[in-house]
Amino acid sequence: MALERNGADDIEHRLAAGAAREALALVAQLTRRTPLLSSGTLEDRCGGRILLKAESLQRTGSFKLRGALAKLASLDQPRGVVAGSAGNHGQSLAYAARRLGVPCTVFMPHEAPVAKVAAIGSYGGQVVLAGDGVEDCIAAAREHAAASGAVFVHPFDDAEIIIGQGTLGLELLDDVADLAKVIVPIGGGGLASGVAAVLKLAGRDIEVVGVQAAAAASFPASLAAQASVDAASTSTIADGIAVKRPGVLTLPLVERFVDDVVVVGDDEIAEAMVLLLERAKLVVEGAGAVGVAALLTGAVKPAPAGSTVVVLSGGNVDAALLALVAQRHEVAVGRRLRIATAVNDRPGGLADLLTAVAQAGGNLLAVEHVRADADLHVRQAGVELTLETRGAEHAEALLSALRASGYGVQRLGGA
Amino acid sequence: MALERNGADDIEHRLAAGAAREALALVAQLTRRTPLLSSGTLEDRCGGRILLKAESLQRTGSFKLRGALAKLASLDQPRGVVAGSAGNHGQSLAYAARRLGVPCTVFMPHEAPVAKVAAIGSYGGQVVLAGDGVEDCIAAAREHAAASGAVFVHPFDDAEIIIGQGTLGLELLDDVADLAKVIVPIGGGGLASGVAAVLKLAGRDIEVVGVQAAAAASFPASLAAQASVDAASTSTIADGIAVKRPGVLTLPLVERFVDDVVVVGDDEIAEAMVLLLERAKLVVEGAGAVGVAALLTGAVKPAPAGSTVVVLSGGNVDAALLALVAQRHEVAVGRRLRIATAVNDRPGGLADLLTAVAQAGGNLLAVEHVRADADLHVRQAGVELTLETRGAEHAEALLSALRASGYGVQRLGGA
Repeated sequence: MALERNGADDIEHRLAAGAAREALALVAQLTRRTPLLSSGTLEDRCGGRILLKAESLQRTGSFKLRGALAKLASLDQPRGVVAGSAGNHGQSLAYAARRLGVPCTVFMPHEAPVAKVAAIGSYGGQVVLAGDGVEDCIAAAREHAAASGAVFVHPFDDAEIIIGQGTLGLELLDDVADLAKVIVPIGGGGLASGVAAVLKLAGRDIEVVGVQAAAAASFPASLAAQASVDAASTSTIADGIAVKRPGVLTLPLVERFVDDVVVVGDDEIAEAMVLLLERAKLVVEGAGAVGVAALLTGAVKPAPAGSTVVVLSGGNVDAALLALVAQRHEVAVGRRLRIATAVNDRPGGLADLLTAVAQAGGNLLAVEHVRADADLHVRQAGVELTLETRGAEHAEALLSALRASGYGVQRLGGA
Repeated sequence: MALERNGADDIEHRLAAGAAREALALVAQLTRRTPLLSSGTLEDRCGGRILLKAESLQRTGSFKLRGALAKLASLDQPRGVVAGSAGNHGQSLAYAARRLGVPCTVFMPHEAPVAKVAAIGSYGGQVVLAGDGVEDCIAAAREHAAASGAVFVHPFDDAEIIIGQGTLGLELLDDVADLAKVIVPIGGGGLASGVAAVLKLAGRDIEVVGVQAAAAASFPASLAAQASVDAASTSTIADGIAVKRPGVLTLPLVERFVDDVVVVGDDEIAEAMVLLLERAKLVVEGAGAVGVAALLTGAVKPAPAGSTVVVLSGGNVDAALLALVAQRHEVAVGRRLRIATAVNDRPGGLADLLTAVAQAGGNLLAVEHVRADADLHVRQAGVELTLETRGAEHAEALLSALRASGYGVQRLGGA
């Protein structure tokens, strides 16, 4: 079965005729030309020459602003624009619409984070809480458009949006003379389609690899089936690319212009987020970190010659999730240690344990005293400690020291 | 009493003769020209036009690389260099020394974080753990220099270091046509001295304000006394500027070229770090965030006309501290709520409470069951809950709902 290609062919012809260059001239007036940052840490670990395209530093926190501005520029005095979105698309459309003086309405799920609702409001967008998920909100947005005369703007399956996202590819062509490979996140495929088409149509020898979150990966199956196949789930830390199925326009474009699509797991994405925080000093959301995760796992290799660019597509992640990801990392590398043990249930029992911990150099973060536990002797009380250590080696030494002091110690998981 | 000024006068004469421009020509070969990023969030809150100089994205994670490179360039075939440092200075010197093929030894305190020890090692520096604080390590480094013939490099009280840091001021002069005001962190004063002298000697009308952490603020008292006065403490979240006293060179330079020095508290610094994480998508260490804190508290006002640049001097902060800062913020804004209450100590008592929480839309993060508590009725058990809410308003609504259901609820502090 062949894919329906008319719409995709049309976009390809427009891009070949310079549509992205025209879009960039418009878009660049309101976007930031985001920096390309080399990463010694990634180069040491993975080899090659690696540059990070920090689109996380784009205004509104993601590349989506490019498509939103290109779309608005294509409309002839619209009454308004309307979208259904839980995140970056809504924020970008609201920001772009305000800058161009167009009313904007965003239908958001009831469970949308307050921070994102507030961000859209601060950009002058009107927020309507509707439905239990993004699909409901998109349906509500379409109805609103039909009733009000406002223009519905799809987050990715739209020619102007795809061409707008392609402007990022042009910046890479202009800014990286020895560009050999580009690693780009894929959700609905708008960014990957636009960027890959622009890079391939430039006639230079540049490889393009897309990365999806394993927990919401519709593209590999859809490409194999030559038809849109739904992802089994859309539950992933990379919520910005948690899209149920490819677009009618984006699937054939990805098939034509993206050389390979790989997947990475949520734990790997979280580790990539922490590496970007600690080493690159960048806040990158899960969706934006999948490319780095793919390098770290070896799912994608850097180009043997020339520069490999990893697109960090967005940085919209709240402090709560950052805290969680950072804490899990501390546990994983042994710098945060949770243990269960038992002390004599008499005065001084707990003090003795804490003295042993201190002597072994452990920094006490939390202590929980569990008095009743079926497994314990009646004269013992269970204790759970959360400790900060200097790393995995120190954590092991600390456990050994406690055992040598006569404590039966069990290591606990969790943050 | 007048300050000893000979050394400072010499630096001023060299800067007036173009020493920073010469240093920049050298330094720029190995540093990144860090981006200037506008911040809509800060402009909305504080007014004016505000640009962030994201020196947190500098190689090695801080501005210190500038001074280290300038210092090394001034040495004639040194046998080696040596420093005492718990952080950014040691990392930068090790990195610079490796790039220039010079052996580097860094004396670090025993309690130095493993991540920083590892970073210096990864840059090829030899780490010697010595002493209980930075002062001990500096003393050990001086001894090592005298014995080995290596050159001791002071973190800030050194003419070449100060001139090297001044290169950041030149980048601002070159990149910001309407530069009106610069806000710069002060620890020992190397960055503030170099940047302020370069800006003032350029003959443009630019105001320079320095910011210290209130918990380690030696400059205001030293400037008032016209003599070096020790800070009462050096314990602050802004460890990168936790310096006990001004330098012999830096104090007179700050007196001459910095218009004002203000202080900010640790809580305000932590909130500035979170704002930079959430809105600017930048990881900035406490020392680097003091300028933003000063704007947020109103201690410094943006220039009424022209651009105000806030120097984000570094980004070296580990995941554990980021997690802590982010969590405290969640508590502060009510998105993370800790409460104490009591339930009937019979089967189903806790389940009833958790049902009430769920009905009010609270997301349960942790529950702690405290069976023995002197204040409680014998048939009651104390319970502490950690909940995620949609914000302060939702947190209040949740508390009201629990009280309406008959629970006596007390709000707890902490993360």
